[in-house]
Amino acid sequence: MTRFSRASSNPSPETNPAPPRLKSDEGPAMRIIVPLQGVVQGRGGLVLGSLLPCALFYFLQLYLKSRNRPSQSPPSSPPTTLSTPDDHHASPSSPPSASGSTIHRTLSRGLLSPRSHPNVSSRAAAVARPDEDSLYYVGYKKCLRDPFHRVDNPEGIIQLGLAENRLSQDLILDWLEKNAYGALLGGDRPGELNIMGLTTYLPFDGSDNFKNAVAGFMGQVLQESVSFDPSQIVLTSGATPAMEILSFCLADPGNAFLVPSPYYPGWDRDIKWRTGVELVPVPCRSTDNFNISIPALERAYTQAKKRGLKIRAVLIANPTNPTGHVLSRDTLIDLLDFVTEKNIHLISDEVFAGSIHGESKFVSVAEVLESEGIDKTRVHIVYGLSKDLPLPGFRVGVIHSYNETVIAASAKLARFSSVSAPTQQLLTAMLSDKQFISNYLGANRQRMRRMFLLFVDALKQLGIECANSEAGFYCWADMSRYITSYSEKGEKKLWEKLLTVAKVNVTPGLSCHCIEPGWFRCCFTTLTEEDIPLVVERMKRVTQGPK
Amino acid sequence: MTRFSRASSNPSPETNPAPPRLKSDEGPAMRIIVPLQGVVQGRGGLVLGSLLPCALFYFLQLYLKSRNRPSQSPPSSPPTTLSTPDDHHASPSSPPSASGSTIHRTLSRGLLSPRSHPNVSSRAAAVARPDEDSLYYVGYKKCLRDPFHRVDNPEGIIQLGLAENRLSQDLILDWLEKNAYGALLGGDRPGELNIMGLTTYLPFDGSDNFKNAVAGFMGQVLQESVSFDPSQIVLTSGATPAMEILSFCLADPGNAFLVPSPYYPGWDRDIKWRTGVELVPVPCRSTDNFNISIPALERAYTQAKKRGLKIRAVLIANPTNPTGHVLSRDTLIDLLDFVTEKNIHLISDEVFAGSIHGESKFVSVAEVLESEGIDKTRVHIVYGLSKDLPLPGFRVGVIHSYNETVIAASAKLARFSSVSAPTQQLLTAMLSDKQFISNYLGANRQRMRRMFLLFVDALKQLGIECANSEAGFYCWADMSRYITSYSEKGEKKLWEKLLTVAKVNVTPGLSCHCIEPGWFRCCFTTLTEEDIPLVVERMKRVTQGPK
Repeated sequence: MTRFSRASSNPSPETNPAPPRLKSDEGPAMRIIVPLQGVVQGRGGLVLGSLLPCALFYFLQLYLKSRNRPSQSPPSSPPTTLSTPDDHHASPSSPPSASGSTIHRTLSRGLLSPRSHPNVSSRAAAVARPDEDSLYYVGYKKCLRDPFHRVDNPEGIIQLGLAENRLSQDLILDWLEKNAYGALLGGDRPGELNIMGLTTYLPFDGSDNFKNAVAGFMGQVLQESVSFDPSQIVLTSGATPAMEILSFCLADPGNAFLVPSPYYPGWDRDIKWRTGVELVPVPCRSTDNFNISIPALERAYTQAKKRGLKIRAVLIANPTNPTGHVLSRDTLIDLLDFVTEKNIHLISDEVFAGSIHGESKFVSVAEVLESEGIDKTRVHIVYGLSKDLPLPGFRVGVIHSYNETVIAASAKLARFSSVSAPTQQLLTAMLSDKQFISNYLGANRQRMRRMFLLFVDALKQLGIECANSEAGFYCWADMSRYITSYSEKGEKKLWEKLLTVAKVNVTPGLSCHCIEPGWFRCCFTTLTEEDIPLVVERMKRVTQGPK
Repeated sequence: MTRFSRASSNPSPETNPAPPRLKSDEGPAMRIIVPLQGVVQGRGGLVLGSLLPCALFYFLQLYLKSRNRPSQSPPSSPPTTLSTPDDHHASPSSPPSASGSTIHRTLSRGLLSPRSHPNVSSRAAAVARPDEDSLYYVGYKKCLRDPFHRVDNPEGIIQLGLAENRLSQDLILDWLEKNAYGALLGGDRPGELNIMGLTTYLPFDGSDNFKNAVAGFMGQVLQESVSFDPSQIVLTSGATPAMEILSFCLADPGNAFLVPSPYYPGWDRDIKWRTGVELVPVPCRSTDNFNISIPALERAYTQAKKRGLKIRAVLIANPTNPTGHVLSRDTLIDLLDFVTEKNIHLISDEVFAGSIHGESKFVSVAEVLESEGIDKTRVHIVYGLSKDLPLPGFRVGVIHSYNETVIAASAKLARFSSVSAPTQQLLTAMLSDKQFISNYLGANRQRMRRMFLLFVDALKQLGIECANSEAGFYCWADMSRYITSYSEKGEKKLWEKLLTVAKVNVTPGLSCHCIEPGWFRCCFTTLTEEDIPLVVERMKRVTQGPK
């Protein structure tokens, strides 16, 4: 019927590593014009600038003529021919196509099926690739396949790589058992109205009731030191899409964020995969207890600018992850000064705001803004209910922004990441139960503190010291004395031994862009107290074994 | 940045025919090289082929030299200066920045705050803009602000613009009242294990149980004419993100899909906003009962290719939306032939597969694939639980693909659009209740049929004929006799009168890229039977009033 397309002839660049290439359709043109422009733009003067292209074109003409000859000959095959399938996603068993043979239309299906497969997009091919490059995911997946269980799988891998809090789920279960049915189906107005609210379309960025409840909860977590306006909130299906949407809103493809490192390994995926935004790690150092350094930010900013990279924001986590610090008010003021001077944004990921086990009081950037009278339109907070409430399965994230355009765009983009109505109803009821929330936060804090102290003490038995930390579900452990070489390679090797010999999955500093080898993030909130001696036993297999 | 702005300024060929344009970044190079290549490739011979470029370059050089002069002057401003706010979205009251003045650091906050605001990304600015350009959204929003209610707001706007089914929600409520608690908290293994499944991290693309239940439900909807493999399913928070993720996977920015029109107005937003994929409407006509035309697809494909636009897929809805057709097996085979010959993909949106009120049997593209032995890796189905089950608030969408790379990438991208665990648990129980589903589908079909007939009959009383349709929550009504001019303008005017005078919100064909003016999509499943005479009364205000 018609000639087959050449859609398949564009190989995806990611699957087949090659030197950076010009787009295929502008390739020849650019290969000629780039050197010529150099000549034209001043180097060589008028005469050379005219004679050189003249000579170049003469030879080019000869070359093209000889190269074009075959294709200029009359087509030997009739118009309806099979295109050559050059899709490298095709199964290796695909036979070469019978190029040149005509096919009758009714036969085409059977003939074509095994021969040519359509490309997926190059970006999908990149995302689909196995995550072998990130040990964070490799370990996580190995653990999923062989998870430790005291009774069912006592030799399984112990999960210290996942920031999930299982210390206080009994409290959540209690609440749900008492209140879930009423929250879902009871309500003030039973019957038709209630089911309508449950099943029909809701605002994609969250119902007003749910926004109010979340804003109230955020205030309660911060001990009412600041209040959040529900109209400045967009709710999403997890902090992950909240971060992605915010990145989409603050930066265009090719722009970048400065990120003090070590940082949460998920950001590389959550932010970079679809938005085209780059992350520039700004190293913090153990000698400084991994505190954020403004001069380092300054240097990174200047370097990025020199490279032609446009920095659109500084991205921080507060409390920090993996280092578990609570940022001081002074640090926040310094950061706000920095972003104000550069006229860029500040994104503060505060998902662990209510998970402080140390003595410090958490200070939200929102609180500093209130008191310091700083331009608010550059400050954006990401929050969620996966940490301070142990409900990662509920998938609730929060964008809180003082920037009207960001809120307007995010609210629209929330259509891709909405929280389901049953979940909104359950959580609206739970978050509005102030007494329950207060009890939960208090009890959980005490349990976290106890586990943290036990766990850090257990690591000390192994000669492993942790950085000072006061927040989060993890400690930041210095195992550099156990690495065979002070390098990325040494760290990788220790991580692998911990995973395969000790059967303990931890997150290597490498995955967090830590520039000092030998540091590991160990989550302790997935454990019970009885697990701790076992972790020590297991790790001794490595720390006491041959290096 | 450029991608987004170009996307919005790139008119689809049918709506705004314009000469094909070169991409802005390759413009100057191509403008020079294209004529030169003509010379080089044989016309004019060796001498002319060398002298002509020579002359051209001489003048080009003169031109560029004079043009480059200003930018070659040294920068006059010191390195540490206030950046000029180039945000065109900043409030109009923002005074120009004190460009060139250096600022002391401690003073910066006070000085800077009122003067410069940070840019948001250009793509966010585009998304944040009011939806004034789409009457579909304008009408929807007006209706939200003033919704009709028989008792509370009898003069409110009647919503015929939203494809939501409220005819059978009582059946869902019954089921939930009996089963919700058990589904959420009972289960086979009560206590800790159950709460773990509810609150902890689950696979982002859906638990195995949920995938099994959805695959079973899809088979049941198709009366077991085909079975779906759960491993080829990715679950997302709504069909909207399912479509976006699939588009991301099948096309790179600047690629396009062919879409028979009129089509669902949401696609322009769901697909184009973030993926950078273009939609090329391929008009269907009333004389052909708006059937899909393969020759029209051929023409559109060829035209797109001439414009340098890479077509990666044909996107269809089956049953069609807004026209309510069930595509015949022959049409599906023709479409499969077309995409196979072009070596592109086929996306079939089958969200209304179980919402047939006519006599035809629905045939899924999956069924045709099974029987015809066609290469499956190019065929992808989008499904959801917002139509065939009336649960749009539950936000559940499905990507079903036979392409391993698409499934692998989609499963990872589902982290941005996950279904919450409570919703998964509720629905796993509901979808596994085969008897309930069977009862629901049967009863709902009868209720839909009755409402469709009543509604079409009511429109007939007004002299409005509907296109033949057998599926969906809407009819496709020809109101061209009531438009004052046979044009877009006439259609808009009638739509506005219906909204403001009759206070009835319908979707104009314009929003669906219908090229014939005067057609409107009217959803009847948001109504009760008693509402129908009222709709007739209301519409008479326009049809019997002065034109």
